[in-house]
Amino acid sequence: MTEKTIAIRVEPSPTADVVPTQDTMIASTGLLPGSRRIYVTGSRDDIRVPMRAIDQDETLLPDGSREINPPIFVYDTAGDFGDPEKTVDIRRGLNRLRENWILERGDTEELECLTSQYGRARLADKRLDAVRFPGCAKPRRAKAGCNVSQMHYARAGIVTPEMEFAAIRENCNRAAYVESLKALDKRTQRMLLGQHAGRSFEAQMPETVTGEFVRQEIAAGRAILPANVNHPECEPMVIGRSFLTKINANIGNSAVSSGIAEEVEKLLWATRWGADTVMDLSTGKAIHETREWIVRNSAVPIGTVPLYQALEKVDGKTTDLTWEIYRDTLIEQAEQGVDYFTIHAGVRLAYIPKTIDRLTGIVSRGGSIMAGWCIAHHSENFLYTHFEEICEILARYDVAVSLGDGLRPGSIYDACDEAQMAELKTLGELTRIAHRHDVQVIIEGPGHVPMQRVMENVEAELIDCDEAPFYTLGPLVMDVAPGYDHITSAIGASIIGWRGTAMLCYVTPKEHLGLPDKNDVKDGIITYKIAAHAADLAKGLAGAQIRDNALSKARFEFRWEDQFNLGFDPEKARSMHDETLPKQSMKQAHFCSMCGPKFCSMRITEDVRKWAAEKGMTAEEALDAGMRSQSEKFVRGGAELYVDEAPGA
Amino acid sequence: MTEKTIAIRVEPSPTADVVPTQDTMIASTGLLPGSRRIYVTGSRDDIRVPMRAIDQDETLLPDGSREINPPIFVYDTAGDFGDPEKTVDIRRGLNRLRENWILERGDTEELECLTSQYGRARLADKRLDAVRFPGCAKPRRAKAGCNVSQMHYARAGIVTPEMEFAAIRENCNRAAYVESLKALDKRTQRMLLGQHAGRSFEAQMPETVTGEFVRQEIAAGRAILPANVNHPECEPMVIGRSFLTKINANIGNSAVSSGIAEEVEKLLWATRWGADTVMDLSTGKAIHETREWIVRNSAVPIGTVPLYQALEKVDGKTTDLTWEIYRDTLIEQAEQGVDYFTIHAGVRLAYIPKTIDRLTGIVSRGGSIMAGWCIAHHSENFLYTHFEEICEILARYDVAVSLGDGLRPGSIYDACDEAQMAELKTLGELTRIAHRHDVQVIIEGPGHVPMQRVMENVEAELIDCDEAPFYTLGPLVMDVAPGYDHITSAIGASIIGWRGTAMLCYVTPKEHLGLPDKNDVKDGIITYKIAAHAADLAKGLAGAQIRDNALSKARFEFRWEDQFNLGFDPEKARSMHDETLPKQSMKQAHFCSMCGPKFCSMRITEDVRKWAAEKGMTAEEALDAGMRSQSEKFVRGGAELYVDEAPGA
Repeated sequence: MTEKTIAIRVEPSPTADVVPTQDTMIASTGLLPGSRRIYVTGSRDDIRVPMRAIDQDETLLPDGSREINPPIFVYDTAGDFGDPEKTVDIRRGLNRLRENWILERGDTEELECLTSQYGRARLADKRLDAVRFPGCAKPRRAKAGCNVSQMHYARAGIVTPEMEFAAIRENCNRAAYVESLKALDKRTQRMLLGQHAGRSFEAQMPETVTGEFVRQEIAAGRAILPANVNHPECEPMVIGRSFLTKINANIGNSAVSSGIAEEVEKLLWATRWGADTVMDLSTGKAIHETREWIVRNSAVPIGTVPLYQALEKVDGKTTDLTWEIYRDTLIEQAEQGVDYFTIHAGVRLAYIPKTIDRLTGIVSRGGSIMAGWCIAHHSENFLYTHFEEICEILARYDVAVSLGDGLRPGSIYDACDEAQMAELKTLGELTRIAHRHDVQVIIEGPGHVPMQRVMENVEAELIDCDEAPFYTLGPLVMDVAPGYDHITSAIGASIIGWRGTAMLCYVTPKEHLGLPDKNDVKDGIITYKIAAHAADLAKGLAGAQIRDNALSKARFEFRWEDQFNLGFDPEKARSMHDETLPKQSMKQAHFCSMCGPKFCSMRITEDVRKWAAEKGMTAEEALDAGMRSQSEKFVRGGAELYVDEAPGA
Repeated sequence: MTEKTIAIRVEPSPTADVVPTQDTMIASTGLLPGSRRIYVTGSRDDIRVPMRAIDQDETLLPDGSREINPPIFVYDTAGDFGDPEKTVDIRRGLNRLRENWILERGDTEELECLTSQYGRARLADKRLDAVRFPGCAKPRRAKAGCNVSQMHYARAGIVTPEMEFAAIRENCNRAAYVESLKALDKRTQRMLLGQHAGRSFEAQMPETVTGEFVRQEIAAGRAILPANVNHPECEPMVIGRSFLTKINANIGNSAVSSGIAEEVEKLLWATRWGADTVMDLSTGKAIHETREWIVRNSAVPIGTVPLYQALEKVDGKTTDLTWEIYRDTLIEQAEQGVDYFTIHAGVRLAYIPKTIDRLTGIVSRGGSIMAGWCIAHHSENFLYTHFEEICEILARYDVAVSLGDGLRPGSIYDACDEAQMAELKTLGELTRIAHRHDVQVIIEGPGHVPMQRVMENVEAELIDCDEAPFYTLGPLVMDVAPGYDHITSAIGASIIGWRGTAMLCYVTPKEHLGLPDKNDVKDGIITYKIAAHAADLAKGLAGAQIRDNALSKARFEFRWEDQFNLGFDPEKARSMHDETLPKQSMKQAHFCSMCGPKFCSMRITEDVRKWAAEKGMTAEEALDAGMRSQSEKFVRGGAELYVDEAPGA
């Protein structure tokens, strides 16, 4: 490895008031209403997978008996911040959950000091003490000759504790729930587990995800488990199209906005609402220190775009970028514990002229930086030419690579053009290089694509990139709704997820307009949980429909609290109900606010159903044999009706 | 016709403070920013189609010259409320635009008094004077033996002024724009008109929609033009899958909420933001008077569900409903000017037991009322048995029928089941009856459907119902996001629109939770404009992409004001930009708030492009012959970059 000294620019010291405190935590964490934190233990005691159990009320049946509604289990990405019995000291960071697993493998070593020159310079700068995360641990790295990637273990046939952890997370919501249904009658069981199977997705989807299945998918390159050896706080998760569709939330400051505390707050907030990974895309002040605070307090994998920081190091001058500065940045971030890097190695010199006839040129930030560098130096992209060396670095820390789509379209007009598709083929070529190094790979995708052309994007990616997991930004299916691009993109994200995209990068309402604040982060996450869940239902993933069935049963039975709590945003659902029917007693009301107390049904169906059940008849017999007696009963009962839908017929 | 006297219940008089005033109007109307109201005149002077012209700034080119960016034209559903040169007196209602066209045809007659007994009783009740719309006109009806439906004229080969009006509305945004592009160079023209054609939709879609094409589609039953002879204020529009996808907004009070002024305000607000039709689903106080205020002030077609009011007339007792009361209600509303009725005539007695095994039974309000009636009387649905007579009534006023899907699924579990599909076939049977009477028909659709089963719903509808226009409520693609069902449903609506659904009924964030307020109405409309536009792009409708291309060009050129104004919600886009970069000068800033002033590109592409153009070279030649000189220029220019996307690589 070259050890050429590189120029380090150290910015003026930020003030201490940007540092996170316990208040940061309090404002952004806390269990969602109606939930309990539970843990599911694996084959060893230190595999404890956190879940959120959403408890439900019993149903009061007409005969006075009560029917149990078992709790619904959902996995929880909030880490110990989501456990009311634990108090995290934000200045010490999260529990180092994976540390023993990493040590047990015996293939890493602790380094005496940081390898990165920049990292060392930052550490030596006393002016930064005020904003530094207190007590960084020493970094680890693979011993000479070792490869510590999860893909390497997978290919060696080893099911790591990380893989088992991720497998439990994927399926125990289903397993535990099925168990708890045993007390119910067969008809109700069928109803609560019933599912519309996906019909046009061919991936393997076992009823029960095992560690071994996770291993197979990682070994085949169809899934990744991002888990840097320097991020032992990370709770393992798997990204691949045979698993639940994941979502990423972007945070990060910029030159015009945001301090460290605010970014850590966004991280906690994002994982409270269910972000599966978080990318720190800071381009403003104290990028290095901000990242340290984020990684140490993150229970989810952290991604970055090292190019952004590398550019800051040369004061924003694209032409001054060098491989050496970039390489030092990779190592700096790998030793902090970043779990995946977006690398724009597919923006080749020859593709740049293919963007000439575009309406919106090159809109990816990383793509335009590299295009600028290529033109300025009339040279091939140094990320492309050094890609083998990049893979060697990544394998020593187990950083996954997210191959950036630097030439993605920035408008509907530019969608699916030659530049985009040429780059995709190069990403496939790079995928094969990375896989030779046992480096885990995901592929980034567009962007802006009209709805009828969304599907072909994922199809092309699966073919060109050897089925490496696809990771798309939306796509936005139109350009004309600034302020609502969480929605324009959720349409594309749902469809592309259905067809097999493994992770969806959220888009917030502020896209194209400004930096997302906390509200925007939440809107983006809930919207993307919707897109991911739409995809999971459509793919026919086993158990995906359990929560829908439970919520619909609660809705039908006027269990308002359960309906709120089973949704993605219990707080908002409750506040909207309050707007029309504010009193607490209305939460037990057997009517909905749309129709008011007098005009209400659904009971009719229940009446028909119960009457048929009592007589032991089929539906048809119920009609033929005794509709008249039913009609008498209905008339005696007051002939009231219940309706679930809002005004709409 | 039977003239049996029916029991009339007159509720206590509402107070006068619920009546609309000019303040109601001021708070809910007004041109959107950056827009001018224009009119496009047809073959006769009284066909004047209102449009909104969105003006754009010129582009300052690097050589100091200026490039024109022609205005973008969009049709405007706000009526005279959207014309700043006109003042509407809300107590007199809108201009009676269609009155001459109706009179010219000579096939209607003015009635001396209302035909409906209920209507007459309301009119005679002095206690209602305080809330009554002042100065109702006398109703019109077809002369004996005449059929006054647009379908009847269409089948007779007549292109009515209404059809021509609707045709101009469909395509003049395109026609006028193409004309205005003539000043630009060919490359820019190509870019601004370029479009990703739809690839999987086979309907006829002419480059220019003519009145004759509208006539053909109406005659074939593939489109409707809802236009009651008693709603001369209505600006004609056409609903069909060969045309722009339309959206409906539901308003209406309930027993627990909302007065007349509030509902009129929602109407004006809804059409300000672009609702194509509005349904008044009131079930609360003074339904008759509320509707009169709405129809007289509505420039868009008004739909209702007459069953709701009929049920109120029997004090909410389903079993007391009679054909006579329902029939009187149809006539009452037809003489007020309602343009289409939702009629749940497909809920047949035999289908009710098919709902026994559902998770959420019958959730359509109209469906459950009729199911309750069928069971209570052990009789066939009276709407089904009297459907011929219903058609005779509708044809005399030209009220279109929207065949309600009373058995639509209320949960993912119940989607596409036997009950739903059986009813759909009956709706097809009723469609054929209505078409025999030249009554215009649309078919209502679900509801809750998982994404992978959305397409089959529209395919089944087109087959079963002779291609009558489909009109769907979403569908919601999941059950687990109460508070966000505008989004869960927009996903389904976009896909079902792409496959040929003609009109999308909006869903607001309050769905399942409460009555929508003004903010919810706006959120629902913008979200559904997004779904409809996604569908139009995907169908490949000629000109659908013009606005996207213009907005993207504005975005690329940092014309912030134009970017805001070309979007669906200029006010929100601007306010979001203000949150990060509040100063007015920032609206001229050549950078975006995501990256800040230092870190900015897109210009790189423009540089490459211009340089190639100057030399008269192709893209490849540009690279081969002179990339080095380009790179020198780029370095000299300061090597700054521009990026459009928010944090995200």
